[in-house]
Amino acid sequence: MDVVTYEFENIPTAALDVIETLRPLFPGRRALEVSQDRLVEKQFLAGLGLTVAPFAEALGPEVIDQLGCPAILKTRRLGYDGKGQARVNAPGDAAAALALLQGAPAIAEGVVDFTCEISVIAARGRDGETVAFDPGRNVHKDGILHSTTVPCGLPARVTTDAVLIASRILSALDYVGVLGVELFVTSTGLVVNEIAPRVHNSGHWTQAACLTCQFEQHIRAVAGWPLGDGKRHADAVMENLLGDHALGWQTRAPDGQVHLYGKAEARPGRKMGHLIRLS
Amino acid sequence: MDVVTYEFENIPTAALDVIETLRPLFPGRRALEVSQDRLVEKQFLAGLGLTVAPFAEALGPEVIDQLGCPAILKTRRLGYDGKGQARVNAPGDAAAALALLQGAPAIAEGVVDFTCEISVIAARGRDGETVAFDPGRNVHKDGILHSTTVPCGLPARVTTDAVLIASRILSALDYVGVLGVELFVTSTGLVVNEIAPRVHNSGHWTQAACLTCQFEQHIRAVAGWPLGDGKRHADAVMENLLGDHALGWQTRAPDGQVHLYGKAEARPGRKMGHLIRLS
Repeated sequence: MDVVTYEFENIPTAALDVIETLRPLFPGRRALEVSQDRLVEKQFLAGLGLTVAPFAEALGPEVIDQLGCPAILKTRRLGYDGKGQARVNAPGDAAAALALLQGAPAIAEGVVDFTCEISVIAARGRDGETVAFDPGRNVHKDGILHSTTVPCGLPARVTTDAVLIASRILSALDYVGVLGVELFVTSTGLVVNEIAPRVHNSGHWTQAACLTCQFEQHIRAVAGWPLGDGKRHADAVMENLLGDHALGWQTRAPDGQVHLYGKAEARPGRKMGHLIRLS
Repeated sequence: MDVVTYEFENIPTAALDVIETLRPLFPGRRALEVSQDRLVEKQFLAGLGLTVAPFAEALGPEVIDQLGCPAILKTRRLGYDGKGQARVNAPGDAAAALALLQGAPAIAEGVVDFTCEISVIAARGRDGETVAFDPGRNVHKDGILHSTTVPCGLPARVTTDAVLIASRILSALDYVGVLGVELFVTSTGLVVNEIAPRVHNSGHWTQAACLTCQFEQHIRAVAGWPLGDGKRHADAVMENLLGDHALGWQTRAPDGQVHLYGKAEARPGRKMGHLIRLS
């Protein structure tokens, strides 16, 4: 097959330069450039007219004077599940927080007052066809996704808005594949938190509740096949199995569908698998 | 893992003799002995008090005088999807029909006047725990399963009876694993057609419509794990993709979940994959 796919957003540019001379790249370079740098990502989203958290490049502690407190300092690149982040609760903490990032280029983000987080998992084919799974409501514990519930229980105007936002992002990136968009629900509307140019943890519920899951949808998009039917045929709750909570799941009476990733070591907080319950 | 599984009912006895000295065998020898010989199977089922088609060992053409017409001659061993069978519509055809079976030991079966065929896919664990998926209604074309529809649309007293029959068969065989039971629905009750000591084509719909599918259920049973939740969360139709009807399914817009078996050659009538639609 005349296609090469890649799994993570953090592939070195030099490697892509080589790969791109050999085969077409889906998702494309632009999605990678945008999503692997938090500052570029925020600028891109704001440039589309979407609402994002207040942000500024963190060239020094004085960025907090500009942005106000509380704020979160984040490295521009790498970091996930709350890693590479430091919270600033008072202006005097800024220097120490920045020091925690060990000189890595950073961004400061204002804290958004949100009622909940939802995410949209959407796919766009090579021909521009776009489909989205139903938005799910995410609950985090200790900075790590704990569960995703679908339907999310929000009014249709909110979920429709969320899907339209995802669609606008896909089009603007001329994206091919599956992409996840995390959104904060606030009293004044949706705030885009971040985008992930890949299948997403908060879309794992599609494995049990949809005829075409996010993984098949991604392959269909990248391979240039027609996108599948992402309709949801049951209500679902996906729960991550972290660390040793994942041990012994096969031998327990399951009240859901268990997916284990085959990771050897069950370190605390490590995503070892997930469980999908339907109703 | 201290378990060996086998896929087909036609493993030579000598091979089992060796394997059984090395590891426990699930499903056990008895299920294999019964299901791989149509005469032994009919005798076993009748011995449980279950209704089967009239049958007799076909030692010669005169078996048809005993059984009446129409009847079907079948080889006792091997044969599936209507292979190794010859129909006898008039007593004078018996010798010719028997000759078609080329001297293989055979059984004669009376033709059952049925309104439809259903099947029950059931599982029994090492501890005797037994669960069954909802019975599905099967439609055959040219002797090959064409589709299975769930729910089967029959009254609860019929589906309950079907599940009880499957359960009685599992217990009598001290069976461990998944087993399929094909039943004819007649005006006077259910007639057991045949049993298959394995996952069954008519149970493929469980892959999309149940939290635990027949394949996972089989592994759970054989491995000694608790059986999973086989509850159906959607109505389903499974349709086999035969021969070149299976070609190009990836590149068509799917209105269902496509499963392809990776067989190289799409011979006419060959099962190449199946499609599951949910509603």
